[in-house]
Amino acid sequence: MTTAYLYHEAFAWHDSGTAAPLLPSDPRAGLQPFQHLDSPDTKRRIHELVVVSGLADHLDRLPSDLASERQVLAVHDEAYLHRLRQASDGSGGDAGDGISPLGRGGFEILLRAAGGAVAVVSAVAEGRARNGYALVRPSGHHALANTGMGMAYLNNVAIAVTEVRARPGIGRVAVLDWDAHHGNGTQAIFAEDPSVLTISLHQDNVFPPGSGSIDERGQGAGLGSAINVPLPAGTGDGGYAYAMERVVVPALHRFGPDLIVVASGLDANAMDPLARQLLSSGGFRSLTKTLMQTAETLCSGRIAMIHEGGYAAGYVPFCGLAILEELASRTTVPDPYLGLVQGFGGQDLQPHQRAAVDRAAAAADL
Amino acid sequence: MTTAYLYHEAFAWHDSGTAAPLLPSDPRAGLQPFQHLDSPDTKRRIHELVVVSGLADHLDRLPSDLASERQVLAVHDEAYLHRLRQASDGSGGDAGDGISPLGRGGFEILLRAAGGAVAVVSAVAEGRARNGYALVRPSGHHALANTGMGMAYLNNVAIAVTEVRARPGIGRVAVLDWDAHHGNGTQAIFAEDPSVLTISLHQDNVFPPGSGSIDERGQGAGLGSAINVPLPAGTGDGGYAYAMERVVVPALHRFGPDLIVVASGLDANAMDPLARQLLSSGGFRSLTKTLMQTAETLCSGRIAMIHEGGYAAGYVPFCGLAILEELASRTTVPDPYLGLVQGFGGQDLQPHQRAAVDRAAAAADL
Amino acid sequence: MTTAYLYHEAFAWHDSGTAAPLLPSDPRAGLQPFQHLDSPDTKRRIHELVVVSGLADHLDRLPSDLASERQVLAVHDEAYLHRLRQASDGSGGDAGDGISPLGRGGFEILLRAAGGAVAVVSAVAEGRARNGYALVRPSGHHALANTGMGMAYLNNVAIAVTEVRARPGIGRVAVLDWDAHHGNGTQAIFAEDPSVLTISLHQDNVFPPGSGSIDERGQGAGLGSAINVPLPAGTGDGGYAYAMERVVVPALHRFGPDLIVVASGLDANAMDPLARQLLSSGGFRSLTKTLMQTAETLCSGRIAMIHEGGYAAGYVPFCGLAILEELASRTTVPDPYLGLVQGFGGQDLQPHQRAAVDRAAAAADL
Amino acid sequence: MTTAYLYHEAFAWHDSGTAAPLLPSDPRAGLQPFQHLDSPDTKRRIHELVVVSGLADHLDRLPSDLASERQVLAVHDEAYLHRLRQASDGSGGDAGDGISPLGRGGFEILLRAAGGAVAVVSAVAEGRARNGYALVRPSGHHALANTGMGMAYLNNVAIAVTEVRARPGIGRVAVLDWDAHHGNGTQAIFAEDPSVLTISLHQDNVFPPGSGSIDERGQGAGLGSAINVPLPAGTGDGGYAYAMERVVVPALHRFGPDLIVVASGLDANAMDPLARQLLSSGGFRSLTKTLMQTAETLCSGRIAMIHEGGYAAGYVPFCGLAILEELASRTTVPDPYLGLVQGFGGQDLQPHQRAAVDRAAAAADL
Ligand SMILES: [Zn+2]
Ligand SMILES: [Zn+2]
Ligand SMILES: [Zn+2]
Ligand SMILES: [Zn+2]
Repeated sequence: MTTAYLYHEAFAWHDSGTAAPLLPSDPRAGLQPFQHLDSPDTKRRIHELVVVSGLADHLDRLPSDLASERQVLAVHDEAYLHRLRQASDGSGGDAGDGISPLGRGGFEILLRAAGGAVAVVSAVAEGRARNGYALVRPSGHHALANTGMGMAYLNNVAIAVTEVRARPGIGRVAVLDWDAHHGNGTQAIFAEDPSVLTISLHQDNVFPPGSGSIDERGQGAGLGSAINVPLPAGTGDGGYAYAMERVVVPALHRFGPDLIVVASGLDANAMDPLARQLLSSGGFRSLTKTLMQTAETLCSGRIAMIHEGGYAAGYVPFCGLAILEELASRTTVPDPYLGLVQGFGGQDLQPHQRAAVDRAAAAADL
Repeated sequence: MTTAYLYHEAFAWHDSGTAAPLLPSDPRAGLQPFQHLDSPDTKRRIHELVVVSGLADHLDRLPSDLASERQVLAVHDEAYLHRLRQASDGSGGDAGDGISPLGRGGFEILLRAAGGAVAVVSAVAEGRARNGYALVRPSGHHALANTGMGMAYLNNVAIAVTEVRARPGIGRVAVLDWDAHHGNGTQAIFAEDPSVLTISLHQDNVFPPGSGSIDERGQGAGLGSAINVPLPAGTGDGGYAYAMERVVVPALHRFGPDLIVVASGLDANAMDPLARQLLSSGGFRSLTKTLMQTAETLCSGRIAMIHEGGYAAGYVPFCGLAILEELASRTTVPDPYLGLVQGFGGQDLQPHQRAAVDRAAAAADL
Repeated sequence: MTTAYLYHEAFAWHDSGTAAPLLPSDPRAGLQPFQHLDSPDTKRRIHELVVVSGLADHLDRLPSDLASERQVLAVHDEAYLHRLRQASDGSGGDAGDGISPLGRGGFEILLRAAGGAVAVVSAVAEGRARNGYALVRPSGHHALANTGMGMAYLNNVAIAVTEVRARPGIGRVAVLDWDAHHGNGTQAIFAEDPSVLTISLHQDNVFPPGSGSIDERGQGAGLGSAINVPLPAGTGDGGYAYAMERVVVPALHRFGPDLIVVASGLDANAMDPLARQLLSSGGFRSLTKTLMQTAETLCSGRIAMIHEGGYAAGYVPFCGLAILEELASRTTVPDPYLGLVQGFGGQDLQPHQRAAVDRAAAAADL
Repeated sequence: MTTAYLYHEAFAWHDSGTAAPLLPSDPRAGLQPFQHLDSPDTKRRIHELVVVSGLADHLDRLPSDLASERQVLAVHDEAYLHRLRQASDGSGGDAGDGISPLGRGGFEILLRAAGGAVAVVSAVAEGRARNGYALVRPSGHHALANTGMGMAYLNNVAIAVTEVRARPGIGRVAVLDWDAHHGNGTQAIFAEDPSVLTISLHQDNVFPPGSGSIDERGQGAGLGSAINVPLPAGTGDGGYAYAMERVVVPALHRFGPDLIVVASGLDANAMDPLARQLLSSGGFRSLTKTLMQTAETLCSGRIAMIHEGGYAAGYVPFCGLAILEELASRTTVPDPYLGLVQGFGGQDLQPHQRAAVDRAAAAADL
């Protein structure tokens, strides 16, 4: 069986404006117009490497469609959608927190990103692909039902998970979010739903500020179905591997998913401007390998990854390629930075990282 | 007395090529042509903020000249200089390690960067300015006597220090390097010289690989005149403040400099792609303040800063502005990212950071 | 006496947004987000060449100030100013025609551009400089009293001319606009004023559409004080020289100015994306030379140039340098493209160009 | 039958270096490092518009392969190929004239561009597609058998034509080159071959300097099989239409091709920095339409277009889309600049343009 892959050129057309580099430019405030850190390059360069390396020839590239209004409204408020559409029909606007710009005519791109997530998750859920990767833009995991935040507009993962939950045989879905920032939106949307487990590995208290502590465990009927693993700034391949082994894998075994969805932000890479982690492409490769083995045991290998953040335009392509190579069980060009990055001080598990992971495990009764 | 400031538009003309983003582009290796991380923006945007904020009106902008051949040859080999000049006269080349590109016609820019360092250090040494900042490009602190490395070509700091050492009253010079990478070149050049103290605060084992451990303490007559403080990845304002208090300030008091020179790389900022530290502009401000107080006590406030690395084009301007504001005892526009960055998890001193600093202090008998 | 020169780093901070490349981006309309053709590079690179070439060392760089409200209101409506200020205080907006974007916090930059024009024109008018060049951004010559248009907001030339007209000895001012587009705003503002002569050399009917025909000659008391020379697309050094000889110089002699102000757009250069003319840097040099000789005869050499358009970021620097070299009677680096551009077919005067110029001359009774 | 379309992401990886913007950067010569005018954007943005507009859904996207050594050597010298390969294996170099940079690892991209031309021309020649467009990069029409020039390396058109000439039923091929620059390479390669007609419509004497006059008519047995139509700078939709009607169509009828290949440079568009023509997307659409009608009559509609130049990254996408829409007999998004550009003065046929075309017709006995 194949590895599904979805990318559409329109994703590069999402207009993040002349931010400087996160806040909107404003000369009076010293904010010189610049290119937003969430530039098209950060995603397009992944796609181009997937093609130029030759890996794309061994993937099943899915056609891209817009998510339907029904699919989006299953997660988001009608009023919020209306606001987004109005901004898009006008001269653009912000999706809620002042750092989530939406350009004129950008609404359909949001639907296309959500639709891309639905397509890949569906393909995996329905057995048309062994696993898959939706390289969508913009990202979604910070978006709440009624607002965008953190350059996320529609919660692509939540929309796709909600969609496939209606399908036979997909009663229980686990969402693993390895983006460097807290997957707050996805967690909130499924907070009371015991049949969706959300696990977020993230750098401790970066974004949203104050979000993602080990005490956030879900609510009501969903208590225990949210797990947070805040990792100290500077955590590398070793620390992430330990978090997988000590928290993620046991939690997945306890939960017993029919499908694993990954909110695959790559901003925990060792050169990212928006996080301080140390992951090499080899680290991402290992995370993927571990997850594939677990999925093999638990749910016939069903893993669907949806792209989230990742802002090191020069290095994320190699991280994305490593993940896709693992999913497709092939290798192409080696990461030329791998030796350098793996040699960085602190790549192996540090005692204070172990302690942080252990605290997260304990909070989750693992 | 005034704060000297030097910037020349030619610094933005140093050609770092179409790197991807550090290694030269090479499609066969998956390295799509891109903009080098050491782009002109990373320095020019500092300068433009210094001007647009109005701070420049309160600085004494020094004229820029090329360093003389004599000044450069006091530090570097003639053969190395010859190689650089040949690359510059031809179609460009690399300064030694394969990641230090020099463009056609770029040699004079190297001399101008070194000359800028000489000008500011001289102005401070001769009492024409209270303190000063040379915003030069390219950087210099990795460069050895006979080779460039790490995007450094001529060791601007070493050239300037060597030049002023000939002047009356400047017998002892302390060099503090707070660039996120080890100041290996400067350390090596002064390794046997007991009258130049080099202290490097850097992220543990990033670049050069394996360099900058606490065991590197100088050689021969210079034994003890080199101090290294490798800080764990993820160190923030608190950890750096502790390193200042526990190592830098006592070491300066013990050494008793006539002049303090700072190799002022800003790549320990919280958004830098080439390091994993957490410093806010407030952190850089505090480091500057502490150093100024120490310099007041020890050497009539004489501090000359020479710019080194710093690759977060959107955030380094605010860090550079904060340092310059402190030097000039003025404030202009506040850093709009300050609250966000100061709130990042781990900004305060962490136990493992304290331990690392204490080990460095012990190794330096402090 | 000296050549005054004014540039301020804030000019590069004017935010022209993610246009594609003139209309605001809009994916539904096929307009992929991109960099506006009026990017900071088109002006900043002129300035940097002026500095790096060494010419700046021989210019008198004037300090930059904001134009006062009184100066601006002498030309523009209060209501229009209010609209600009509101857009700037909000999240930005458009100055009137949908292709004149103004970014948040951009209002002061408009005042600074106008103030730069005032400073240079004043220096020349008051005899503090022999001649001068204000390298301002954004441009102004399309702006009318009550609206912006064509990426022009405040009519910098009109504001400066109006300001110096109050000074003794500057009763009559001639404005020569050699921007490739019609100087419609300046013409309209002075249409009824017989003491201000406006001459526009421009590519026939490009922008504003339908504007700048030979029939537009001023109105009322100002009838005859506006002259238009629409030049066919493809006009080069020869055609422009003939327009100077046949129209501009005789018109200036007839008018007898106390001061000549040039609206110095460089977009008639041979590589400009927004016009189709063929001027080499040598062509601009000759225009300047001719004008200086005329000014010597008529008004003690008093020429003040205010920058307008010019969008070939790679070639406008050499055109601007040539003009400034002439003004300062010095040469620095030669234009490396000069031979290529001068060799382009059609650089010499063509019969249909001669006819067009003759028609313009006849319409102006010259 | 379908319209074949070929684009490969590797085309954007051709490394044109930090030119300024055509000559290699060199600060001593005033050449500030910049982006080469032949940037990836100029082609990638066409492709992305073809996809985002939805047109791609109606095209038959062909797989991309490298041209074989045999195919390339049928046109180019082995020694030249060796030089290119050596530059690519080393740190890059120039293909011959100092303005044709080749990056490290770039050789395969050249083969892929040639292979793309072969694929589309073959598909049309063999009747697998009605017509087709190969959106390749870098371009080829300036390249001679033994050297590159003008940012052209391998003559993609000549390689493809030579390849299909071996196929049954393709005895006679007409090459129409509507790039704004002279198709000197293609003309030279087929100069003595009476079975390949080359027609070049180009701006009079731009590049190569002195090349492309009406006197260049082929040599020996090929005398008369080369036709040149040098058009004055500033020629627009009307002038090009007249050149088609007066020269191209009659020449094609006289020649009687089995296949028409277009060297489809788009740099005669009205915003191109490297030419001074005025074509709107509507003009390109009309040229295509006229050619399709002619091809219908003469050779069952067989037209294969190979992309050449075009440097207005903001406008070439709409020109390319218009051509592809015509080939595929569909429309998608309208060109939002069309009205503006069609209104430019001089879009209709001018007398001096008519005369130039008539001279070309006479020289070709038409
Ligand atoms: Zn993230
Ligand atoms: Zn550094
Ligand atoms: Zn203009
Ligand atoms: Zn061309």
